[in-house]
Amino acid sequence: MDYARYDRIRAVQWRDDHLRLLDQRRLPFEEAWIDCADAAAVAQAIRDLAVRGAPAIGIAAAWGVVLAMRRGADLDVVLATLRAARPTAVNLMWALDRMKARIAAGADAAALVAEAQAIQDEDLAANRRMGALGAALIAPGSGVLTHCNTGSLATAGFGTALGVIRAGVAEGRIARVYAGETRPWLQGARLTMWELVRDGIPARLIADSAAAHLMKSGAVQWVIVGADRIAANGDTANKIGTYQLAIAARHHGVGFMVVAPSSTVDMATPGGDAIEIELRDPAELLEVAGRRMVAEGAQAWNPVFDVTPAALIDALVTERGVIERPDAASMRAAFG
Amino acid sequence: MDYARYDRIRAVQWRDDHLRLLDQRRLPFEEAWIDCADAAAVAQAIRDLAVRGAPAIGIAAAWGVVLAMRRGADLDVVLATLRAARPTAVNLMWALDRMKARIAAGADAAALVAEAQAIQDEDLAANRRMGALGAALIAPGSGVLTHCNTGSLATAGFGTALGVIRAGVAEGRIARVYAGETRPWLQGARLTMWELVRDGIPARLIADSAAAHLMKSGAVQWVIVGADRIAANGDTANKIGTYQLAIAARHHGVGFMVVAPSSTVDMATPGGDAIEIELRDPAELLEVAGRRMVAEGAQAWNPVFDVTPAALIDALVTERGVIERPDAASMRAAFG
Repeated sequence: MDYARYDRIRAVQWRDDHLRLLDQRRLPFEEAWIDCADAAAVAQAIRDLAVRGAPAIGIAAAWGVVLAMRRGADLDVVLATLRAARPTAVNLMWALDRMKARIAAGADAAALVAEAQAIQDEDLAANRRMGALGAALIAPGSGVLTHCNTGSLATAGFGTALGVIRAGVAEGRIARVYAGETRPWLQGARLTMWELVRDGIPARLIADSAAAHLMKSGAVQWVIVGADRIAANGDTANKIGTYQLAIAARHHGVGFMVVAPSSTVDMATPGGDAIEIELRDPAELLEVAGRRMVAEGAQAWNPVFDVTPAALIDALVTERGVIERPDAASMRAAFG
Repeated sequence: MDYARYDRIRAVQWRDDHLRLLDQRRLPFEEAWIDCADAAAVAQAIRDLAVRGAPAIGIAAAWGVVLAMRRGADLDVVLATLRAARPTAVNLMWALDRMKARIAAGADAAALVAEAQAIQDEDLAANRRMGALGAALIAPGSGVLTHCNTGSLATAGFGTALGVIRAGVAEGRIARVYAGETRPWLQGARLTMWELVRDGIPARLIADSAAAHLMKSGAVQWVIVGADRIAANGDTANKIGTYQLAIAARHHGVGFMVVAPSSTVDMATPGGDAIEIELRDPAELLEVAGRRMVAEGAQAWNPVFDVTPAALIDALVTERGVIERPDAASMRAAFG
């Protein structure tokens, strides 16, 4: 299957002597690029959320290590700086560990370039593979709902959950695409809808709280989401709101699919209870689109992630294959 | 129980020769008032959403009829104009029917003032009664979550669902209050949080999609919401997102309480399937807080209400009493 028609966005681009990053903070208003000439600039872009999405962060960091070696920087310091730029990102640690292992094995600059390029190429290939695997689960004529942004912006390209949607549209299986806004950062509204419009995939935005009503209408057969971390029993941490979608999907007999590279699986975390949920600044809720919308003196509770128990997940798709109704035993068999 | 400490807001105020309305579109930024000298101005305020909330709309319209009679307007035309200002509002029709019946019985201006005042006073009394009835269901030390705005702004005062919260806080039963933002209009963020801050009730705003995660944490024991229309079998239409909360509440064993005056009950509507859901302008999702946040060319699906089936409702509170687990039989017994 040729997916190229729906796959035209590359947000992390290596340009021989620098790294170009599409500044996601400025989407969908403008396509502005950040040129990173050294690892410090890459770390800054990660910290500032100019680049976001677990795989994209890992790829950008790998190129940051390449830039650091070329400039003769202290690689131990650079690795620590890049790690600290987003301490909860599992893929970031995983990509940096790969680069560190090559350095420890005596790699020269060319070998580090090859390793960073491999990380990027493998991610794209994994996404295409996951796209095909996930799309195969979807009956022709189906509608799907996604959450947050898991597309080309968040990866080397094609995307994870959004990659399944690209593949499903290309294969003619998916007839209707819906995306939730994803408050408070509105990644669904700002980023996913931008990707879908840019790649010519007809889609409709919904309020996050309209998902259950949409499911009741019969318009969607699958909810398809990504993952920030998957525990050894299949419990999945992802953007706030994912858990609520999983409950509503089960209530309506709508399928719930998690799509993520195997590097997202953390077998050292036994279950969802062991995943600490990051609480962020209440200002992200008190301000909407940069404008204060809530009375002075008001407080807010702003968890950024939640955990969907494995029991609510119908299919876990990684580049290694599909696990239906994941549990500790099937996870151990696949990733142990 | 003295609830006055937490009940200091009156958004619809009769001033002998005109009606003062707190302009809800400008909250929480400023407390601006609209003085309506005739029924056309009242209809305009209803159409423009300067006044919102089913009971408040009905009360404002009743005063509009008073203003019309004083000015010698054609009352049939005025009644039709007010009805058309928000054709889906059941309470608006109910209040205008009361005024129309008085006119048909030959009421003079003073009698119409008395009728409008009665509608307003009865609403406030009903809200205080519902507050006490609903609060009695809540165990001391509980947390509650509400949605949209059902407070003093939406009624003659005190509120329906928010009235139960006011009563529960005053009685020391409610220890924690959470309010969902309520996209796309953000009534929870803009209006409910403003009321809670202004009346000194500690509360925290959450993203609509954080509700299930909040329930899982054990912080809330009841979800308390209002209603736009309640069918003969107990199915309840309310702000988009209510149904999703009801599903999540049932999943977590959290109670789900609907609080609304009996005038919201429409025994002529057999069930939720017969309630038409209003689809509004996609622009309400494509713009956030007045700023375009979604790529040009994007589409959106914007249902404003949803229907919560009676089977997901643990308690229906009206001024006539509490119906636990409402169904067609118990509804008929109470309202038939």
